[in-house]
Amino acid sequence: MVQCLDRIIASMDTGVDDALALAYLLGSADECELSGVIASYGNVDANTAYANTRAVLDLFGRSDIPVFLGSEHPSWADAFIPDAGCAQFHGDDGLGNTWLAGSGALADGAGVPGDMSGDDMSVDVPDGVVSVGGYLVGDAHAHPALGSYPRVGRFRSVDRPQSATSTALVSGGTRRCSVDAADGIEYLIEQVREFGRNVTVLSTGPLTDVDAAITRAPDIASKLRLVMMGGTLTQPGNCWDAVAETNIIQDPEAANRVFHSGADITMVGLDVTHQCLLTRSAADRWRATGTKRGRFLADLADFSIKANLEADTALFSGGMPLHDPLAAAVALDSSLVDCFDLALRAETNTGDFNGVRGRTTGDPVGLVNHSMPHVHVALGVDSGRFLDEFAERMAEVCR
Amino acid sequence: MVQCLDRIIASMDTGVDDALALAYLLGSADECELSGVIASYGNVDANTAYANTRAVLDLFGRSDIPVFLGSEHPSWADAFIPDAGCAQFHGDDGLGNTWLAGSGALADGAGVPGDMSGDDMSVDVPDGVVSVGGYLVGDAHAHPALGSYPRVGRFRSVDRPQSATSTALVSGGTRRCSVDAADGIEYLIEQVREFGRNVTVLSTGPLTDVDAAITRAPDIASKLRLVMMGGTLTQPGNCWDAVAETNIIQDPEAANRVFHSGADITMVGLDVTHQCLLTRSAADRWRATGTKRGRFLADLADFSIKANLEADTALFSGGMPLHDPLAAAVALDSSLVDCFDLALRAETNTGDFNGVRGRTTGDPVGLVNHSMPHVHVALGVDSGRFLDEFAERMAEVCR
Repeated sequence: MVQCLDRIIASMDTGVDDALALAYLLGSADECELSGVIASYGNVDANTAYANTRAVLDLFGRSDIPVFLGSEHPSWADAFIPDAGCAQFHGDDGLGNTWLAGSGALADGAGVPGDMSGDDMSVDVPDGVVSVGGYLVGDAHAHPALGSYPRVGRFRSVDRPQSATSTALVSGGTRRCSVDAADGIEYLIEQVREFGRNVTVLSTGPLTDVDAAITRAPDIASKLRLVMMGGTLTQPGNCWDAVAETNIIQDPEAANRVFHSGADITMVGLDVTHQCLLTRSAADRWRATGTKRGRFLADLADFSIKANLEADTALFSGGMPLHDPLAAAVALDSSLVDCFDLALRAETNTGDFNGVRGRTTGDPVGLVNHSMPHVHVALGVDSGRFLDEFAERMAEVCR
Repeated sequence: MVQCLDRIIASMDTGVDDALALAYLLGSADECELSGVIASYGNVDANTAYANTRAVLDLFGRSDIPVFLGSEHPSWADAFIPDAGCAQFHGDDGLGNTWLAGSGALADGAGVPGDMSGDDMSVDVPDGVVSVGGYLVGDAHAHPALGSYPRVGRFRSVDRPQSATSTALVSGGTRRCSVDAADGIEYLIEQVREFGRNVTVLSTGPLTDVDAAITRAPDIASKLRLVMMGGTLTQPGNCWDAVAETNIIQDPEAANRVFHSGADITMVGLDVTHQCLLTRSAADRWRATGTKRGRFLADLADFSIKANLEADTALFSGGMPLHDPLAAAVALDSSLVDCFDLALRAETNTGDFNGVRGRTTGDPVGLVNHSMPHVHVALGVDSGRFLDEFAERMAEVCR
């Protein structure tokens, strides 16, 4: 069953595969209308996500699509710094070092790659709890992205600005506009209130935006249709501990609240995205179009294919996992996946009786309380059909 | 589809739910022939499992069924001690403190409940690596069962006997017979070689026996049909860390080898057993038969219902989870469960890049190497049908 959805809004932490998903959605204009994008922290900081999103939309001739600033940090922390793993898999700019959005895409006060040598890499960070890729500053797993931020222990604490307004950069890195940090959340709330399940919220980053919207407007939960990339139920995780998945470890508290909110949720996690690998030959086809768009998409893919292969030769010898693009495709056509429905939780602590922070697993209470909301967890995927359609549609959008 | 299986052999660490499963199989004589039972360490030590198995078979008038001694310790340890959790959920005797097998059912050299006070509870244990319920002696999670064994740190090490022969006790605790420790493994090998997939191996304890058989006779793997209680794929575990399941944590190395062996494996784990809760009213019905058998089964159930309720009021308010009985029922009728097939692994280490020791999860290599053996993991269960049939058949077998 192919679903023709009226509207999609996307919450994105625009890195490499988010950008591919974005291009894919733009190339699916006959199936959906991408009404707006909320740019948030995750693979990159929120300002960079904003700039990257704008740059991709501009490149593909869709400057008309509004971009909103979403969450700048996890719900459990006061601030956020992208980690080295993000740079490893998404590049220092979040877009495979293509610098599509210019060096200004990096957050205020952060260095650019040219700044990364030497001993004076300290940068002001807000006072309070600071998360690095889902971990506290000082945690053994917290490795700030070199080139953008100094190493752990090099931070100087400063007071966090009291203003609710933060500065975002737009494409090119030269113009600046002031964006209210609340805009993206308000936009999400308004869209769901207006369109209900006729708008699909596609989340390709941490669930902080969706959680913030539901927390602020609990009435939207029952109307919310969400397709999210994140988590893993039947496969190991892709974080240090091999249990948690990257998007979930950023904000397990938010994910856990969303899972229990009663929203209609389809989880597209590593269970299925690790079955959908983009080959170099597909990327070569995009490059062969000879267009700037084709070169950009191929550069993204080549960067990610190389990074994934270096990280796990056994798992990714066939290419890069199409995490966010698969979620985008499922938002358009749910028949691509077979789902297992269960009450789901994201664990928020590690240790005896708690499990492992960031793990997505069944909520055992749901086994006895059948009225607990169930999440549709994608466990099977028609990877052949998806990969063919994806490569084809992307080749078209390059032209 | 109801499968009429010719033969079943069971590897059991005979505690409360193993005994219920055993009685259930005896009450299913029109559907299957229970050809033999291999009694092994797990919920109790192997000698106690042996005595308990014999005692249950005797009570139900099936002294003709042979019992073999299986593994006495995990594949990774030189010796094994039951832990406090086993006593909590299975009683000091493994049979809900019914003492059906007499106090002699406890292992040689171990105390009985009357001995548990005072300071002189030390007992000889073999030199080498000693496992307590899946953990090393000295591990924070290793709590030997009080009443049977002394607390951690109270052990005196002695040389492990070089003889391959160990002493097992038979029902009543007065007669002793010498049983070759290899008997159970040899029996398993012979049965599979003779009957192939016309015999189902039902494993309700650690997978040490099955692993030992496959390791000794690799030719049986492709002929082996195994239904196993253990593991969990989509639900939290039931050990300290809330990740591992009890049977798997005892011997993750063995489980991992078995999962990759190419045997036809159906995993009946917490995903489904936590959906099948035996109520007190069902047990009351057995007691109302007024027979010794009925009282025994009801006593087992009452003990376990109480222990589980005390451990987790939210999850087990509806009764005791029928772990091993469900696996026995699935061995007779696979249509009771819906399975998800995937390459499965048991993790053997804890920490970065390793996951959590004892966790059962997808083997990611199986996502790219489709020839890797797949395990049928039960995720859905017709709990209503199972519970009705189970209670009814058990009521009949009480008479």
